[in-house]
Order: sequence, then C-alpha cells, then structure tokens
Amino acid sequence: MCLPACTMKLADALSRRRFLQQAGVAACATAIAPSAAKASEPPRHSLQRVVDLTHTLSASFPTTWPNAFMLEQVSKLGKDPWNAYRWHLQEHVGTHLDAPLHCTQGPSADRIPAEQLVGPLVVVDLRARASTSADTQLTLDDLRAWERQHGPIAAGAVVALYSGWDVRVHDARKFFGLDDRGGFHFPGFHLEAVQFLQEQRNVKGIATDTLSLDPGQSADFPVHHYWLGCHKWGLENVAGLGQLPATGSTIVVGAPKIAGCTGGPSRVLALV
Amino acid sequence: MCLPACTMKLADALSRRRFLQQAGVAACATAIAPSAAKASEPPRHSLQRVVDLTHTLSASFPTTWPNAFMLEQVSKLGKDPWNAYRWHLQEHVGTHLDAPLHCTQGPSADRIPAEQLVGPLVVVDLRARASTSADTQLTLDDLRAWERQHGPIAAGAVVALYSGWDVRVHDARKFFGLDDRGGFHFPGFHLEAVQFLQEQRNVKGIATDTLSLDPGQSADFPVHHYWLGCHKWGLENVAGLGQLPATGSTIVVGAPKIAGCTGGPSRVLALV
Repeated sequence: MCLPACTMKLADALSRRRFLQQAGVAACATAIAPSAAKASEPPRHSLQRVVDLTHTLSASFPTTWPNAFMLEQVSKLGKDPWNAYRWHLQEHVGTHLDAPLHCTQGPSADRIPAEQLVGPLVVVDLRARASTSADTQLTLDDLRAWERQHGPIAAGAVVALYSGWDVRVHDARKFFGLDDRGGFHFPGFHLEAVQFLQEQRNVKGIATDTLSLDPGQSADFPVHHYWLGCHKWGLENVAGLGQLPATGSTIVVGAPKIAGCTGGPSRVLALV
Repeated sequence: MCLPACTMKLADALSRRRFLQQAGVAACATAIAPSAAKASEPPRHSLQRVVDLTHTLSASFPTTWPNAFMLEQVSKLGKDPWNAYRWHLQEHVGTHLDAPLHCTQGPSADRIPAEQLVGPLVVVDLRARASTSADTQLTLDDLRAWERQHGPIAAGAVVALYSGWDVRVHDARKFFGLDDRGGFHFPGFHLEAVQFLQEQRNVKGIATDTLSLDPGQSADFPVHHYWLGCHKWGLENVAGLGQLPATGSTIVVGAPKIAGCTGGPSRVLALV
C-alpha cells in the first residue's frame, strides 16, 4: 500500500545507510547473484563517459497534446544585439518529467528535492519481448529476473524500462504503435512492478523510453495514479538507454524548476 | 586569440590525458600549492551530496526581457484527467544557459555535446570585493590567486563567479544594482580572465550568480562576444555556490535540448 505524502519525508528521515540495510534485508527473500553486493554499494565513478538520455525537442516530436510546441523568434542577430526565442510548450512533451502534481495534489516539479533527481540507474531490457508484443509490460517477474542476475535494486535507485522504442521517435505512427482503430500500442510498467519498487525497494523514480509510464493500451493509467500518488516522479520518452550497462551508471535528471509546474522537458544525463 | 568553431572539435580530437598534460605544463609557469595535483585529477565522488544551483523560476524573477514568463493552465484535475500547463517564456530568464547562437552564428544549445555539460567546478569567491564594489570583475589576477591556493584549473573544468548576488534575487532593484539613472551595477567576468580560461586552460564553460557574464556596467558585452564566439557556453543567475567548496565538486548542467534554441532555463546541479 502506498502512503502518499510520507515518502520524501521518510527518505529525509532515514539515513542512506539504513536504506541500504533495508535493501539487504529485502534481498534475503530473493536469490542473490554473486554480484549482489555491488548493486547496493554507493556508486563511484570518474566521469569517463556522459550519455545523453534526451531526445531533441521540436515541433515534430510525437505527442497527443494539441499545440504542444512552438518557437517564436523575439530577437534576431543583425537587426538586434542577440538571437533569442520565446518558447510556447505544453509541459508533457519530449523527454520530460511527470511530477506528482500531474495527476494528484502532490508536489510540483520545483518542489522535488535535488537529491531525489540523482541516483544509480537500473536498466531493464525488454527489447526482445517488445519487438514481438508492443503491449508488453515491465512486470514484477522482470524485476525479480533482473535482481537474480545483477543483485538487489538499491534504495534510491532509478529504474528504466528499455523497450527500444526510442528509435521510432521520428515516425509518430510507429512511436504510438497506432492500430487501425487509432488505438495505442507501446510498452509500459505493470502496476505490481511499481508497487514492488515503492514498497520493497523505495527507488527514487522510474523512466521509460515510451510515451507513457502506463502501457499504450491502458484506459485508466493505474501506474501514473499509484506512482505519482506516492509522491515519486516518472520520466517519459527517454532516449539512449542502449548505450548504458544494466547497472553501474548514475542518472542526473535536469527537471524543470518552475514554480508550480506539473513536470516538463528535462535534460537527462547518465554518468558512467 | 579565439578560434571559433574549432574548440569543440579540438576537444574531441585531443584525449583527456593530453588536456591534463597541457594543464600541467601551463601550471609550471605558476606557483603551485601543495594541493595542485588534486585539481587536475579526474574527479571521483560517491554522490554523498547534491547541491542545487538553480533558482526557482516564476513570473517575478528579475529580468530585462519583456513578457518573459507566463504559465497557462491547459488541463485541471477534477475537470480533466490531469494537471498540465503551457509555458510561455523567453529563453534567457531564470537560471539559464547562453548557447553560442545567442550572439554568434555558432551552435544552438541542443548541439552542445553532452560531455561538455559535465565537469569539475571551480568556485571563485569574490564576495568580499563585491560587497563594497558592485562593479567589480573576476580578473586574471583572481584566477592566478585561486590557482596559487588550489592548483591549476583543469582543462574541461567549469569556472563560477561567486559574488553572493543570488541572495538578492527576490528584490529586482538590488539584483540589478540599479542606480538613480537606471544603470545596472553587478559583478561579471573581465575579458582577460575568460581569454585565459579559453587559451591557457580550455575550460568547458563559465557561470555567474549575477544577471550577465559581463558586468552590469558593460555597454558592449565583450565577454559574451568572445566566449560564445569561442563556441563555449555560459550560465547566468546561478544559485547556491556558497554551499560548495572552491574545488572538488562536479557540475552537471541540464541545458535545454530544444532544436535551434539559443539557450534557456536549465536545472543546474553539483555533485560533491
């Protein structure tokens, strides 16, 4: 059961060490791979590689929101001293963050503490299944299988669904997975999986390379309502997950810090 | 002399090791403090602390651009399934990035390679001088003094001017340093300092906690024209530099990845 409003306070109150101990306890119930210890160690890296997990946003980016994006030139070099544009954009377009406020009365994006935007990144590769079934979901079984191979998911991690959908982004029909009736078909998270990530692993956020945290066929968006209701954040339309290992990188989410915003385009980088 | 368009290619062509060797050679001409070696080592950290260098952006943020910011609610929970806004904003407002395109024909923000947005952060504390002289500048002498204390500035670093101006952000008159004639008075970089950072240190970017890379009294913006002309980026209106050590943290700049944009509001985080 999710406990809205308490999650971030809980994260503040408990030390990182205690989180890691809890992760260790939870892991006792699972089969632990030889590399299990690595997954719960604080990440260390020397910034050898920066991987961009962000699509370039333009007016042609696939979205279902009307009038989602427009650049208006307000100053032009030659005539004026500067080049400058005014942006007109709907928050939930491109590679973007969903803040709790998007579908609850929870915090806006600017109120998410900065430390919640950085964490070890877990990449769950669903490409094989997604290539034959666009409606596939990231399930609790997928998380259990990942943990058997790589060790327990650390508290404070961020879990990404890697379906391979990012390469479809230049063809809206393929990115939406449109059927003949206008229905959407793309992978998303299963509710049980995100309940596990909240209640058993206390991860910071979830991310998907598809249009929505919920799969395309969802009518009532249970993952959005549960996850954002837990006052956690989600990322949609991420790119480049194929350049990362399953574990060992650190995600840094450049979430918008605009007063009251429900999310918005974010520069998402991974450090390896 | 700056060589526009070649800088990023040069950075790609030379290995990080060669950059560090160059930094070491340059350091031979300066007095080297005992901690000099640390400044040119690749940074390692264990994500013990995330420091937010970003002001919250709202309609009241001090800016000289007209109609710089407005949120329009386009979907409201209860009546609609979601809360969502449309943003209408001028790119150069709040804590934001200036891309080379802002005052040259150089790259837009989306074309800055991701690895150029992450680097060791050098904080140059000018608060004492700025508190008595709003028109003070970060000079070559300040950089030499910083290097005598902390060691040579590494190639690939980012250099931040810390004037203490961020605490004035809720009072536009104080943030601008307005005089009786409407003139601006706030600190900025001196041209010779940024020429040194480009030609002798090859840093990735510069940042200031004031409204502009150039000081408030500047009429012709030589730092903007030189630095962006070198196809480097700058950050303006950064916050929170006082929470960081002079050296030892890593900046991650969540620059906007919007096709053709000349910069824009950016989530800027430091990892310590």
